[in-house]
Amino acid sequence: NRPLGVAVIGYSFMGRAHSNAWRNVSAFYPDVPAARMTTLVGRDGSRVQQAADELGWEGTATDWRDVLERDDIDIVDVCTPGHLHAEVTLAALRAGKHVLVEKPLANSVAECEALVAAAADSPGTAMLGFNYRRVPALALARELVQEGRIGRIQQVRLSYLQDWLSDPQAPMTWRLRKESAGSGVLGDLGSHAVDQLHYLLGEHVTEVSGSLRTFVSERPGPNGTEAVTVDDAAWATLHTASGVVASLEVSRVATGRKNAMVIELYGTTGSLRFDLERLNELILTQTPGADARTAGAATILVTEPEHPYVDAWWPAGHVLGWDHTFTSQAADFLRAIATGDPVQASFEDGLAVQRVLAAIETSDGRGGARTETGN
Amino acid sequence: NRPLGVAVIGYSFMGRAHSNAWRNVSAFYPDVPAARMTTLVGRDGSRVQQAADELGWEGTATDWRDVLERDDIDIVDVCTPGHLHAEVTLAALRAGKHVLVEKPLANSVAECEALVAAAADSPGTAMLGFNYRRVPALALARELVQEGRIGRIQQVRLSYLQDWLSDPQAPMTWRLRKESAGSGVLGDLGSHAVDQLHYLLGEHVTEVSGSLRTFVSERPGPNGTEAVTVDDAAWATLHTASGVVASLEVSRVATGRKNAMVIELYGTTGSLRFDLERLNELILTQTPGADARTAGAATILVTEPEHPYVDAWWPAGHVLGWDHTFTSQAADFLRAIATGDPVQASFEDGLAVQRVLAAIETSDGRGGARTETGN
Amino acid sequence: NRPLGVAVIGYSFMGRAHSNAWRNVSAFYPDVPAARMTTLVGRDGSRVQQAADELGWEGTATDWRDVLERDDIDIVDVCTPGHLHAEVTLAALRAGKHVLVEKPLANSVAECEALVAAAADSPGTAMLGFNYRRVPALALARELVQEGRIGRIQQVRLSYLQDWLSDPQAPMTWRLRKESAGSGVLGDLGSHAVDQLHYLLGEHVTEVSGSLRTFVSERPGPNGTEAVTVDDAAWATLHTASGVVASLEVSRVATGRKNAMVIELYGTTGSLRFDLERLNELILTQTPGADARTAGAATILVTEPEHPYVDAWWPAGHVLGWDHTFTSQAADFLRAIATGDPVQASFEDGLAVQRVLAAIETSDGRGGARTETGN
Amino acid sequence: NRPLGVAVIGYSFMGRAHSNAWRNVSAFYPDVPAARMTTLVGRDGSRVQQAADELGWEGTATDWRDVLERDDIDIVDVCTPGHLHAEVTLAALRAGKHVLVEKPLANSVAECEALVAAAADSPGTAMLGFNYRRVPALALARELVQEGRIGRIQQVRLSYLQDWLSDPQAPMTWRLRKESAGSGVLGDLGSHAVDQLHYLLGEHVTEVSGSLRTFVSERPGPNGTEAVTVDDAAWATLHTASGVVASLEVSRVATGRKNAMVIELYGTTGSLRFDLERLNELILTQTPGADARTAGAATILVTEPEHPYVDAWWPAGHVLGWDHTFTSQAADFLRAIATGDPVQASFEDGLAVQRVLAAIETSDGRGGARTETGN
Repeated sequence: NRPLGVAVIGYSFMGRAHSNAWRNVSAFYPDVPAARMTTLVGRDGSRVQQAADELGWEGTATDWRDVLERDDIDIVDVCTPGHLHAEVTLAALRAGKHVLVEKPLANSVAECEALVAAAADSPGTAMLGFNYRRVPALALARELVQEGRIGRIQQVRLSYLQDWLSDPQAPMTWRLRKESAGSGVLGDLGSHAVDQLHYLLGEHVTEVSGSLRTFVSERPGPNGTEAVTVDDAAWATLHTASGVVASLEVSRVATGRKNAMVIELYGTTGSLRFDLERLNELILTQTPGADARTAGAATILVTEPEHPYVDAWWPAGHVLGWDHTFTSQAADFLRAIATGDPVQASFEDGLAVQRVLAAIETSDGRGGARTETGN
Repeated sequence: NRPLGVAVIGYSFMGRAHSNAWRNVSAFYPDVPAARMTTLVGRDGSRVQQAADELGWEGTATDWRDVLERDDIDIVDVCTPGHLHAEVTLAALRAGKHVLVEKPLANSVAECEALVAAAADSPGTAMLGFNYRRVPALALARELVQEGRIGRIQQVRLSYLQDWLSDPQAPMTWRLRKESAGSGVLGDLGSHAVDQLHYLLGEHVTEVSGSLRTFVSERPGPNGTEAVTVDDAAWATLHTASGVVASLEVSRVATGRKNAMVIELYGTTGSLRFDLERLNELILTQTPGADARTAGAATILVTEPEHPYVDAWWPAGHVLGWDHTFTSQAADFLRAIATGDPVQASFEDGLAVQRVLAAIETSDGRGGARTETGN
Repeated sequence: NRPLGVAVIGYSFMGRAHSNAWRNVSAFYPDVPAARMTTLVGRDGSRVQQAADELGWEGTATDWRDVLERDDIDIVDVCTPGHLHAEVTLAALRAGKHVLVEKPLANSVAECEALVAAAADSPGTAMLGFNYRRVPALALARELVQEGRIGRIQQVRLSYLQDWLSDPQAPMTWRLRKESAGSGVLGDLGSHAVDQLHYLLGEHVTEVSGSLRTFVSERPGPNGTEAVTVDDAAWATLHTASGVVASLEVSRVATGRKNAMVIELYGTTGSLRFDLERLNELILTQTPGADARTAGAATILVTEPEHPYVDAWWPAGHVLGWDHTFTSQAADFLRAIATGDPVQASFEDGLAVQRVLAAIETSDGRGGARTETGN
Repeated sequence: NRPLGVAVIGYSFMGRAHSNAWRNVSAFYPDVPAARMTTLVGRDGSRVQQAADELGWEGTATDWRDVLERDDIDIVDVCTPGHLHAEVTLAALRAGKHVLVEKPLANSVAECEALVAAAADSPGTAMLGFNYRRVPALALARELVQEGRIGRIQQVRLSYLQDWLSDPQAPMTWRLRKESAGSGVLGDLGSHAVDQLHYLLGEHVTEVSGSLRTFVSERPGPNGTEAVTVDDAAWATLHTASGVVASLEVSRVATGRKNAMVIELYGTTGSLRFDLERLNELILTQTPGADARTAGAATILVTEPEHPYVDAWWPAGHVLGWDHTFTSQAADFLRAIATGDPVQASFEDGLAVQRVLAAIETSDGRGGARTETGN
């Protein structure tokens, strides 16, 4: 009954967000198994030590392979860059660890398939960290969809817009090189939007039509002008087996939009709307019942104890932020370890997303022709 | 069965708005008695003729007394400056005309009392033109209140904010002189807000506590600096016989607010919110029934045929503007002439508003002490 | 110098909206040539007479050909169903009349081409009535784009969503039959959105990828279940010669959306956003200048005298409605007749829209493949 | 150079919020002096132990006096009910501790005065925890006001609305008894609003006019119906020495409002608006410069690194929640201990707020007459 020992691999943006989750999970979710912040892993010994001191880790390591061999590490939490996810995760699964992987599961469909197979063979619990599944408003949306509150869904609108590349003079970064980033905005933001679609509908996208665009093909780099080799924006039409059609639009040049993942679900008897920039709100419309005069779009402040995840936090009316989703995610992971219940998201979910993204790229290469995803 | 002949007295802002109503009423309300744009009245013969040509009037007159003697004039519509309302209206009532008076009924409580008495003695239909009673969203709010949809109302928030005096260097005008304007923002905008309170609650304010303020006491005038002798802003707490408390705040220095009459009604089982800058919307909150998760503030687009006045206009989803309220007002007046049904607003309503405004001024002079209105 | 005699052909929804415009144009635009509401044309003599009485027309006719021969008719305003536009308009142009055609110009590219040719040969002024070009907020958006206030536009988002077909049991109507309606939501609402794109950018769409969908393939009709033969929703990606990419989504099953034409323009230094359900507002974002702290999305209440069209109407802060756009359109048409200046929209603009819609249908038939429009 | 030992007195709502702050402060503010979660204090030994385990405290104590004598406790953080603030804080100051007191400073003006005197005599740093001073949007508002970005402020609107007493059948609680709660909504919510006014303006309220109201005078209690002895709602007009007028309205019966502290500042050249339910947003309006067409209310998403406090947290565009304000408050307190710089809020600020609240109560007892605060 000792606390579960945790090692987080990586200590930059995502490592920091996950560390915050491990530091706070027991305070808000005292009923889940206890976790211990055992080891923070990073290649640079002095920097990882400084990060560990700030973030509250007991110890550090500079080689992730080392922690896989330790008995006091029960959980490996993979927060490396995406192209390392597969290698670390596979090794951790083989070592029998419980594994939490920050999204994306991996950068290719093939890697994802290997990870799904490995997870099936492993005694450990394997979970993929799509943190937005723990936004209370989105979890509430899923409940309402599942209960049929908006009827049968016909049409969905997905967009995820940012603007940090609006300026054609914005400089080159590793995120704009195919070799380092894998893909552009489609993989970075499109993955979140597609996972939400799967999560909210409870089914996967089977066919797509898509196109990509790099608006600014060259940017100033450290050694002069350099070619941008990933997409700035992407568009797709997504189809599910049950007949839902979803549009998808993602962009890094949408001036004025900072972190605008907007999701609209249109059902036969209602609709739902969410904007990540207003994370604590969900807008619900229901077709009028007896009184057509009072039908309207209800902005729900999702801060009541009846709302998903909210009762773990503060009294009614106190808004949450972006990072709270990671803490709730850690709680769900710990609970799944204890109960063996299905995880959210599974590695299969990660593979399903990757297949959709790959199919969009394929479709783009085929002039927008409809392409099956394999889901 | 000839059409009712109409004379409008005045052709500036309000005369133009009322002319627009008479020109359009039969097109949208074909079921009310027909009206004929007989005579537009103004003191300057050539200017009133030009206005009449533009606005669609058959003829003009330069002395309002003349039209009172004409048999082909059935309706006198008083759009003069407020300090002339009493004289013109009294004469028109004595001449047996139907009279529509643009708000305010008059500039003093005594004048209003005389007009109420005259209306009671007259065979004509007398109506006061508080045009915002014909905003569909506000008429819907009244219906919902009357039906008990938000329970028993406890607290109301009224504000009407504009900003054309924000700049301390904005020049002197007749509106800032007591002798010409009667009062400042309290009379100009506060009257609308108080009338809405009476209209929405169905009862009058009986007691008030209030204060006035002139933020900029001198402004540049045509002949040098001149003292401002009316209020720039006013605040009051209003009490009704049934125990409702309403706050009132009106201002001409609320930078960024153009025409923001905002009304919030808080009842025991729901609330309503309206903003004149979004005239086609009404926000309704109802306390949760069976499902506490989905309670929220519903923004109703008040453009459905089930909404008050809307079916006279366009198909669902087509927004109306400010001027449509005057056309609906003309229709209601014509209908009341035919049916003898009670008018909205009555002269009594106008007197009730004037008493509240006067009591606020009295309270201000008494250091904010609570003061009875006489209603 | 007599007033220009007007004949409107048709007296249902659009005939009524245009009649309203002719009735009011001189009151708000006294500087344009005077127009006289001479004749309302409809096939049913008694019904057209009743409409003419309500709407303010001097006379009626039951055969549109008759009015083309009359010397007292200078303007023919075509408000018939779309499939009759070409025939009536061609005849009116041949008769030397000034012609205003309600959108769409015609139901096919071939008809539109014929009309463009006829307009070029005619001495009369020919204008196409895309009324939303006179929404002050959209006209302001165009000004700002032309002045470079948001930089070079890269990405645009267009949607026009309604919900009257959300319910799968909503009954069959003529609008859902290909033979009577020509097309579904793509032609009905997509045409407005595409015209706005052309209007705002000042260039035409040259290539598209699109798809259509009928969510409910059978609906209850007067004689039992009947097949729906037009689209319920459509999606497209639109490309212009200069490299702008625009997404387009139109739907009649977007539950809770009543008349939501939403337009977002993303430029290199700013963005604009408009929603027809809030017709009086325009949202402008500009990339921060010296102070990054105060960059934000500014909601402009487009009711100031400096805004396009507004000074013709009411003092600052008084909102307009949907129908005002038609009155401003009539004024612009009368002014163009007098000056010979280019019209907004031209028949060429109408042809350009029709080509885009046709190309979207073609692309849909080709599995979403990119298709040139011919523009 | 050892970390500063912290003892928090109390472990319910506020004790939990402050514990969260101490647990996280070093992760986000690594540059401030380190703090150690030494002791959590509560009267019930087993419950405080359980809380300490969940919240991350090293040890517990059941008598707050004990921790004042310990050398390993440097900071005493008072999170008891308000009526105990004075006694604990005075003792802690006499013991030479640094003291952070959760608002209110104390329940009476006399107690506040004693605390101000004690803080002046103490070597320790004394700070009052008005956490909303660390909302980035409000801290930004203060910066903008101080820089003169909205000119000279003339008028302010303050409201703080909740709805948990809307239902007349809501049961009796200790918060509705004068003896246990001290006051009703005025003290609970009004204190926050008044402190913000002082914080944003940089000056204190000198004169007030106010009234209180208990809408529901009896509520069902555990032993039958019981009298409510505190206010449900309060209204006041507040005046500062420089001539600003602020309205204040607080309520617990504002149905549909969950935690709506709304602040509007109107200056001669701009205005600011904030709503706590949208904690990450600030709305700024500035009077138009060269171009009157583009003046509007700019919604700033206050999540950029240039915004106050934000760079301590996450990359741009990631929203914060309610609890982050306490962590930033702890950081500011630790920094003030190290630097000796003035604290935000000082005990003087707490006294100033209490004087305003007391004067409002006095004014209410005098029928709303204007009353000096003593500030």
